[in-house]
Formats: sequence, C-alpha cells, structure tokens
Amino acid sequence: MNFEHLEKQMKFIIEIDKLKSIYRQTLLIDQSRHEGDADHSWHLAMMAMTLKEHANFEHIDILKVIKMVLIHDIVEIDAGDTFCYDEVGYQDKRDREVKAAKRIFGILPEEQTKEMWDLWEEFEEMATPESKFAASLDRLQPILNNYFTEGAAWKKHNIKLSQVIKKNGHIKDGAPALWSYVEKLLNSAVEKGYLING
Amino acid sequence: MNFEHLEKQMKFIIEIDKLKSIYRQTLLIDQSRHEGDADHSWHLAMMAMTLKEHANFEHIDILKVIKMVLIHDIVEIDAGDTFCYDEVGYQDKRDREVKAAKRIFGILPEEQTKEMWDLWEEFEEMATPESKFAASLDRLQPILNNYFTEGAAWKKHNIKLSQVIKKNGHIKDGAPALWSYVEKLLNSAVEKGYLING
Repeated sequence: MNFEHLEKQMKFIIEIDKLKSIYRQTLLIDQSRHEGDADHSWHLAMMAMTLKEHANFEHIDILKVIKMVLIHDIVEIDAGDTFCYDEVGYQDKRDREVKAAKRIFGILPEEQTKEMWDLWEEFEEMATPESKFAASLDRLQPILNNYFTEGAAWKKHNIKLSQVIKKNGHIKDGAPALWSYVEKLLNSAVEKGYLING
Repeated sequence: MNFEHLEKQMKFIIEIDKLKSIYRQTLLIDQSRHEGDADHSWHLAMMAMTLKEHANFEHIDILKVIKMVLIHDIVEIDAGDTFCYDEVGYQDKRDREVKAAKRIFGILPEEQTKEMWDLWEEFEEMATPESKFAASLDRLQPILNNYFTEGAAWKKHNIKLSQVIKKNGHIKDGAPALWSYVEKLLNSAVEKGYLING
C-alpha cells in the first residue's frame, strides 16, 4: 500500500469528474441533450472492444487502444471541446491542450503522469497501429450520432459533405471496412438532406 | 472483412447510445445534473487504470476489469437503474437484468454475445479477482460523488452510515487500501452532516 500514491490518484479521479460536463456539438441519439466528453469516451472504448476485428493491422494491442480513447479528451477539462470543423479553434488547440495535459496528468504519481502523457501523445501523433485505429473510432462515433439525429450538428453549422470527407477520410487508414460503412451513411445523409452536397 | 458482423456490431453500438441517458441517483460533482450510466462506466474504467496497484490480488488482468466496468450497466438500458439502497427494487433486479442482457448482448455476432454475457455474469457473481476489484470500484465511485456533492443523494434518501457500510463493505475484499480511504470519507461525511450517524 502506498498512501502517497493513493492521495494523488484520488485527487486525479475527483478532478476528472469534470469531463462529464464538457459538452460536444453532437447530440445523444435520443436528442435529449448534447453529448458529454465522458459519454463519448465510454462509447469509443465500447467500439474498440466491439470493432477490433476491423482494424487495419495484423497485431493490435487493444488494451492500449482502450486506454487511449478513455483518456484522449481529458485535456478538454481545461482546453474545452474544439468542434472538428472549427478552423479558427484549431489554430491554438495544441498549445491549450499541452498546458492542460501537464496540469491534469501532473496530479498523478510521477510514473502514471508519464504513462498518461505518453498515451495522449501517441494518440495525437497518429503514427502507430493503436493510435490510427483509435483515431478512426474517434471520427466514426460523431458521424453515427450526427446521422441518427437527422444531421442535427451538421445542419446547425452548415457542414458540407466535402468537409466531412476531408476531416474524416483517415478512418480508412485505421479501418477500411468502417470507412466503407461511413461512405454509405454519408451518401444516405445527403439524400435525406442531413448534410449539404458540396 | 465480415460485413454481416459489421452490420450487427454497428446496430449494437447505436443501441447502447441509450446508456448515456439512463440516470443514476448520484449527481456530478459540479452538481449540474444527475450522473448518467455512461459517465459512471467511463469513470470506473479510469479508476481501474489508475488504482490497479491497490487491488488485493497478486495477479489481475486489467483489460478484463476494464471491459467488465465498461459493460456492467448496459442491462440498465432496459432494466433501469436500481438505487443500491432500494431494497424493493432489488427483489426483481436479477430477472429484469437477465432479460435485458439477452436482448442487448444478443444484437452482436454470436461469439461477441457470449463474450459480453460471460463478462457480465463474472461481474455479477463477484467470485474472481477481476470481478472483486471491479465491484470495489463500482461501490467506491458513487461514495466519492456523494461525498463531494455534500451528501446530496444520501440526504435526499435519508441514508444512514450503517447502510453505507453494509452495502459497500465488500470494497475491502477487492482493495483494502480503498476501503481505508472510504472509512475516512464516511467519518468525515458524518461529521459534516452529509450522512446520518446511525
């Protein structure tokens, strides 16, 4: 038992409760409220479990993928959620998020600060099989929620098909079958008027 | 690529979005709303990652613990949340939840239905190191949120210290250090009037 560890770990666990009320542009499918970052992170972890056979790699460490998606948005407690089609917000996103990662992961005992930081950096760099697959899930999930809320967030922000393809096309690198599924959804979204054809 | 698998898996992923609006008695620490089951499940997975050194077992498969806590409340999509101090609600909890598990996990391809069912049953039976540790986290987390919301859910339901100890004492089996931490919180909760001393 290490009580010094435990004190720091509990402080971190209490701090990250804040992720539950960082809201995203996406609605829940029942449209009752905006989705929170904790909702989203849980959904990605479930998707990692469920969809791992579609990852575009011979070997994938699924525990690492799950850890990555669980922690990938914790920086938004300080940095806020940046809508993926917000070009202005993206300009200083990295600086805001690095500062947040240092503060929040820094609450933990040293070794765990390093583990969280390394996982987050690997996710951000999108260079390994695990981070490519995690990134595919992170882009797929809001497309599902947008589609099944009749394009609520797309319509609100006048999003075009070409923007969705540009921002999400890398789903193909991590999981080609998931990208095929997305292409069908996007065609259907345009047909139904959820998404602007342009 | 297995498109028959993919269709079933996506149907499951869309179905479980409903977990985000199954609300618990516990409030978020910022008291802005009740906590959802997806929030809670995400928090437990983060706790499994962070607190694994305190598990009361020489070896523990942390991937299994994380999977268990991610899926353990999915049955509540149909069965609803049963407050842990609701003796009447507990009478038919098992029947409601088994029916829900069959329907919801049954959406998946056969092998994955079995994986989810086995994880859920192992969690419910609380007989293995992984399920004992998972159960400890599942009981610790609402105690934290109740304490840091000045006992909101305890006060609302006139919960007594003896009830909290009776329902949560098994935290000690899975993680003695976490139970020591809880004992300090509960003493403090009584002192501050968050919890009835009885």
